[in-house]
Amino acid sequence: MIEGKEVASAGQLRYGMVGGGEGSFIGDVHRKAIAIDGLAKLVAGCFSIYYDDTVRTAKKLGVSDDRVYKDYKEMARKESEREDGIDFVSICTPNVTHFPIAKEFLEANINVVCEKPLAIDESEAQELADLAKKKNLLFAVAYAYSGYAMVKHAREMIQNGAIGEIRVVMGEYAQDWLATRLEDTGNMQAAWRTDPSQTGKSNCVGDIGSHIENTVSYITGLKLKSLCASLDSFVPGRTLDDNAEILVRFSNGARGVFWASQVAVGHDNGLKVRIFGSKGSIEWEQENPNYLKIAYVGEPVQILSRGGGYMLPNAASVSRIPAGHPEGYYEAFANIYRNFATTLIKKKSGEDMSGADFPTVEDGLAGVRFIGKAVESSQKGSIWVDI
Amino acid sequence: MIEGKEVASAGQLRYGMVGGGEGSFIGDVHRKAIAIDGLAKLVAGCFSIYYDDTVRTAKKLGVSDDRVYKDYKEMARKESEREDGIDFVSICTPNVTHFPIAKEFLEANINVVCEKPLAIDESEAQELADLAKKKNLLFAVAYAYSGYAMVKHAREMIQNGAIGEIRVVMGEYAQDWLATRLEDTGNMQAAWRTDPSQTGKSNCVGDIGSHIENTVSYITGLKLKSLCASLDSFVPGRTLDDNAEILVRFSNGARGVFWASQVAVGHDNGLKVRIFGSKGSIEWEQENPNYLKIAYVGEPVQILSRGGGYMLPNAASVSRIPAGHPEGYYEAFANIYRNFATTLIKKKSGEDMSGADFPTVEDGLAGVRFIGKAVESSQKGSIWVDI
Amino acid sequence: MIEGKEVASAGQLRYGMVGGGEGSFIGDVHRKAIAIDGLAKLVAGCFSIYYDDTVRTAKKLGVSDDRVYKDYKEMARKESEREDGIDFVSICTPNVTHFPIAKEFLEANINVVCEKPLAIDESEAQELADLAKKKNLLFAVAYAYSGYAMVKHAREMIQNGAIGEIRVVMGEYAQDWLATRLEDTGNMQAAWRTDPSQTGKSNCVGDIGSHIENTVSYITGLKLKSLCASLDSFVPGRTLDDNAEILVRFSNGARGVFWASQVAVGHDNGLKVRIFGSKGSIEWEQENPNYLKIAYVGEPVQILSRGGGYMLPNAASVSRIPAGHPEGYYEAFANIYRNFATTLIKKKSGEDMSGADFPTVEDGLAGVRFIGKAVESSQKGSIWVDI
Amino acid sequence: MIEGKEVASAGQLRYGMVGGGEGSFIGDVHRKAIAIDGLAKLVAGCFSIYYDDTVRTAKKLGVSDDRVYKDYKEMARKESEREDGIDFVSICTPNVTHFPIAKEFLEANINVVCEKPLAIDESEAQELADLAKKKNLLFAVAYAYSGYAMVKHAREMIQNGAIGEIRVVMGEYAQDWLATRLEDTGNMQAAWRTDPSQTGKSNCVGDIGSHIENTVSYITGLKLKSLCASLDSFVPGRTLDDNAEILVRFSNGARGVFWASQVAVGHDNGLKVRIFGSKGSIEWEQENPNYLKIAYVGEPVQILSRGGGYMLPNAASVSRIPAGHPEGYYEAFANIYRNFATTLIKKKSGEDMSGADFPTVEDGLAGVRFIGKAVESSQKGSIWVDI
Repeated sequence: MIEGKEVASAGQLRYGMVGGGEGSFIGDVHRKAIAIDGLAKLVAGCFSIYYDDTVRTAKKLGVSDDRVYKDYKEMARKESEREDGIDFVSICTPNVTHFPIAKEFLEANINVVCEKPLAIDESEAQELADLAKKKNLLFAVAYAYSGYAMVKHAREMIQNGAIGEIRVVMGEYAQDWLATRLEDTGNMQAAWRTDPSQTGKSNCVGDIGSHIENTVSYITGLKLKSLCASLDSFVPGRTLDDNAEILVRFSNGARGVFWASQVAVGHDNGLKVRIFGSKGSIEWEQENPNYLKIAYVGEPVQILSRGGGYMLPNAASVSRIPAGHPEGYYEAFANIYRNFATTLIKKKSGEDMSGADFPTVEDGLAGVRFIGKAVESSQKGSIWVDI
Repeated sequence: MIEGKEVASAGQLRYGMVGGGEGSFIGDVHRKAIAIDGLAKLVAGCFSIYYDDTVRTAKKLGVSDDRVYKDYKEMARKESEREDGIDFVSICTPNVTHFPIAKEFLEANINVVCEKPLAIDESEAQELADLAKKKNLLFAVAYAYSGYAMVKHAREMIQNGAIGEIRVVMGEYAQDWLATRLEDTGNMQAAWRTDPSQTGKSNCVGDIGSHIENTVSYITGLKLKSLCASLDSFVPGRTLDDNAEILVRFSNGARGVFWASQVAVGHDNGLKVRIFGSKGSIEWEQENPNYLKIAYVGEPVQILSRGGGYMLPNAASVSRIPAGHPEGYYEAFANIYRNFATTLIKKKSGEDMSGADFPTVEDGLAGVRFIGKAVESSQKGSIWVDI
Repeated sequence: MIEGKEVASAGQLRYGMVGGGEGSFIGDVHRKAIAIDGLAKLVAGCFSIYYDDTVRTAKKLGVSDDRVYKDYKEMARKESEREDGIDFVSICTPNVTHFPIAKEFLEANINVVCEKPLAIDESEAQELADLAKKKNLLFAVAYAYSGYAMVKHAREMIQNGAIGEIRVVMGEYAQDWLATRLEDTGNMQAAWRTDPSQTGKSNCVGDIGSHIENTVSYITGLKLKSLCASLDSFVPGRTLDDNAEILVRFSNGARGVFWASQVAVGHDNGLKVRIFGSKGSIEWEQENPNYLKIAYVGEPVQILSRGGGYMLPNAASVSRIPAGHPEGYYEAFANIYRNFATTLIKKKSGEDMSGADFPTVEDGLAGVRFIGKAVESSQKGSIWVDI
Repeated sequence: MIEGKEVASAGQLRYGMVGGGEGSFIGDVHRKAIAIDGLAKLVAGCFSIYYDDTVRTAKKLGVSDDRVYKDYKEMARKESEREDGIDFVSICTPNVTHFPIAKEFLEANINVVCEKPLAIDESEAQELADLAKKKNLLFAVAYAYSGYAMVKHAREMIQNGAIGEIRVVMGEYAQDWLATRLEDTGNMQAAWRTDPSQTGKSNCVGDIGSHIENTVSYITGLKLKSLCASLDSFVPGRTLDDNAEILVRFSNGARGVFWASQVAVGHDNGLKVRIFGSKGSIEWEQENPNYLKIAYVGEPVQILSRGGGYMLPNAASVSRIPAGHPEGYYEAFANIYRNFATTLIKKKSGEDMSGADFPTVEDGLAGVRFIGKAVESSQKGSIWVDI
């Protein structure tokens, strides 16, 4: 059954990476996620701003010396000139560098997968979107949670009208890793994420609030119309937000709340989305991602299990192993990459790209806009702002 | 162990009831809750606006004919004149009648237990509070959830500083019974609750939002400073709110969200409170009330079980049976009444009333103020209003 | 809705109690459970083998002096001679005394509610069953868990064939209160339960294993055919079992396991029953008693909530409050008593006793037989024995 | 942090596979699990008994034509003769073929990873163990669940004495995929697993009961002393067991129950192990594998989360991503392979092989012995047999 899904053969594509050197969490996740399906091979990299780190990482990953780069501009240029140049680049660097790096590779005619948030300012994000369109390049943004099978199932249910008109959306993302001044302890992640010069205008909303926005948007298909946000900084001495509560309104009249927190003691990585419609509701939790809680008016609550025979087509197509064998974060990430790679293979061969189902540069732009509006609302006294 | 808690003997007090006739849900709950500890006997009543209903109910409950009343004013007057008159009245009628009935009994020098919300307008609630004080009468408001042992444990933990300074409070109360037009089907509860002439300015916030406010206030001891509310009416043709999202700020700087909904398909009676402090967090759910989820920074999450040897004194004092034997809604209610009755017995005998721990008319007043401010905020365009 | 269920008026019956003095856990539960529906009034008692304890308890409970008895024989005799004698007695004493006390009251023509296990030996239990039949008296055994609404729902589902032919039954009852030598610390419960002279041949199987047997029997309607039991005593110095694993076979060919433990650290009172049939399965947990987990072949798991509109008639008739308002242990107990009392009222008035649904002396006899067979199997080397 | 764990570089080893052709579930899992860490490259294969299937699979996986084999004997011989021959073979075929294939590769001096059960008969399993030892080859058996981080944490806790002396072990593995005659519907898995000629003496115990045995053995370090098993076949027309209840006794005096079922409607892949000691208990569930439920006498239950700072060293070393980012089945499998590969690299370079932590041929032998004893017990009337 698995086989049928693999339209492509192993190692058909080549990719490079910017970022993901020693101590990076997310770069390694990208590489392993790609390795699971094996559709692309890592052949080039500029893994760090420290060249010795890049060299060590490259060696460990089996990247040949001639494709180890001191800076990303050189990498973009040289790879674009090679016959066997990379098909796409994965950008796994701190937020403020996403824009210049992505722009460089787009201009070198190289497809891009970029970490979120796509950029700091909406204008930058718009520029990338425009450039990708103009260059006719694929551009994915790493909203990995949309790769989970049950997230896709939720989306299909809603598309099918299963829960009726959506009325209320409750999204939350609760973490506790920044409940104390971790940035003072040498923790690299904590340091850059709480530093405006590396992370931009928002820490908490930018890092995890944007995942709420994307997951809700992906599942419901709704557009945000306005919001009223309170960005809070609870840990003394921290300049950027570590918690945020946001009232949201959607264009169809639905309303809801997005709550993102990095000081919610007892929560590891609690992205949870609850969607209430006129006929039913759907609940999904990232920490228990293989299940979906469903309810219809007047009926018992149902627990759907990934792999069940009742799964809808698109969700079923990304479910890799039988029900009860947990798929996790790597597999969600791998689903994003598998779809991106498969679409890219189709594009290269001139095939129709139907079936493309990965978060695009447009989704990344929507995310940057959301972050910007949340910051604006909060700075103006938590007033309502249109989106 | 249970015995030690029963400072009073069975049947020491006499009470009457207004409301609670045929088809009433909450009147029966009050009576059974009182019966569990047996400190007060039902001896008088005006159970309905329909006299034949009152008579039938009285007969079934064993109330003697001479204390069955056609209207509550007669009841207040006659009971106040009897040697063996009632020690207190329980008021279990629709919202708009709470104020006049309670006032009548206070003026007749009879102690009161009243359903929430205490009144429709803050001025009425204030009048009741003033009158109770002036008359030196006990006045409880039936915020039953503060009677749960684990709610009291949470309160004690916070009083002891266990979770540090409170930063974020997330309260929600999700139901789905009004997700469709139940008021059109002959359901009495649904009919009066969605009818402004019986329920007042707010349905959802008034009925269940006020429970969030009270539970949070009881557990945390924090005072609300301001709020920004969106009261929604999703079911077509309904004039009052059936859903509300409220951003809240507390006087200590803590922030949070209160969400109340009667259209949250899949939820029966989901009052849930999560409190995040600088050192730890506490989570409690009414539908699973015998447990408390606790977390401290950097440690595993803990599940506390009612009846465990680690329970704090006040919580332990209301825990009736060993851990693992579920206590439910009736027992929470009974705890309110047991404390009220015990306090009343002390008062009657001139004893010190220390140990009083039931929701008072002041708590009822705070609730009415909260409801009023939420309605005001929403009507003015979901702006911030001070409390 | 509640009203319709109360066929009888308050205080129609009179009862007495043997046992339930100071320090007793279960006697107080019986009294409160009866008080909830108020169909019977406590008017007589012999609460302890210590007369001063009996006197103090009586005073606190409002029992008049002339019906406070030094011993149960006197109580049985005198109450049977009174015009206004008790309608039934509740026996809440240690195991070994159940038989003589119950026998005494039966012989005095008084109906009986008795704690489990009904007796120590099967012959005694049989004698009680025969005597009750001969005297035409009602005799209930306090298997309280069969009073839970969702247990009744499970029974009705199976009677309706909802899960097909039953194949596998997994019953467990996990506690941890005897994981250490609590009997050495002055704990009265622990002392008598681990003392063969008060508790009989088995501690763990007798106390909680018998609840598994009764709950499974009530829900499934199946008869045990044979068993293979291992009764273990893990805590040093303890002579009676504190843990037991029992393979069971039913007359219809179903098989299963009963596991009872008082040394299962981390478990308070974990009675859990899982029943697997050819078409579906049912799971119920006493610590979360308002829910039932249901599954049908090929479909999502369902969570049924007490109070849902889909509840079956008998279960619905004992559901007191709306879904999401937890009912607990007291209410389950109260359901047993309400049905017993209602049946007794019908019997006294010569009415048809249809609707009787409480655990009878025959169920108590089945329980004693089960305990005896488990002990026999284990003593003979954990061999298979027929039942 | 991840980096430090990767002692080896990408692609250092070469492996081949027998089995894992079209329609195979587990072969694909092995390949993806290996790909995650990338320490070994697939270079050879005999993926099916159908050569065209093998060829298609090889092509898709990028295996070069000269290393695609018609039968496994040819593969063993030719690969052993090559300079760049495979370092190990992964055997992913039906049960009855494990022995001859593994033997062939061992004799060709090739290290082996083999699916479980290792063999049908204990004598075969013993022969493989002896041969591996004689040839000084590494031999892993794919008990994948021992690769989960929290399983390793449980093991370390017990090794550290955290829960005291083990008293009771409850292991269960509940599935429902064979609750109906799936073998009649063309399902390949169901067909061979219920066919004695391909699966051996036991279906249910062999397939999943053996996982209980291995997981319990790995976590507790206890040895089975005796058992009393009831192997059941509930679905009409099925000759092999689809359910089994087994009483077990361990050499230290601990007792317990293993329950394995393929007819437990509502359960996908419910491997669950609960271990109760004199000081505490541990509970782990495969379907929610990133958490561990822990309890100590008299203290609240704790929920440990993979990635928490409190994790013990060996468990921490296989935890790949931060807490709350679920790791699943693939990652558990990958952990087995990473350790196997790392150990093999050390062996090849003559290094000390300390740190080896994968299920060995000895564990496989213990599993085969357990299956055999369970079958023997059941066939003799569910009597006790020594192990």
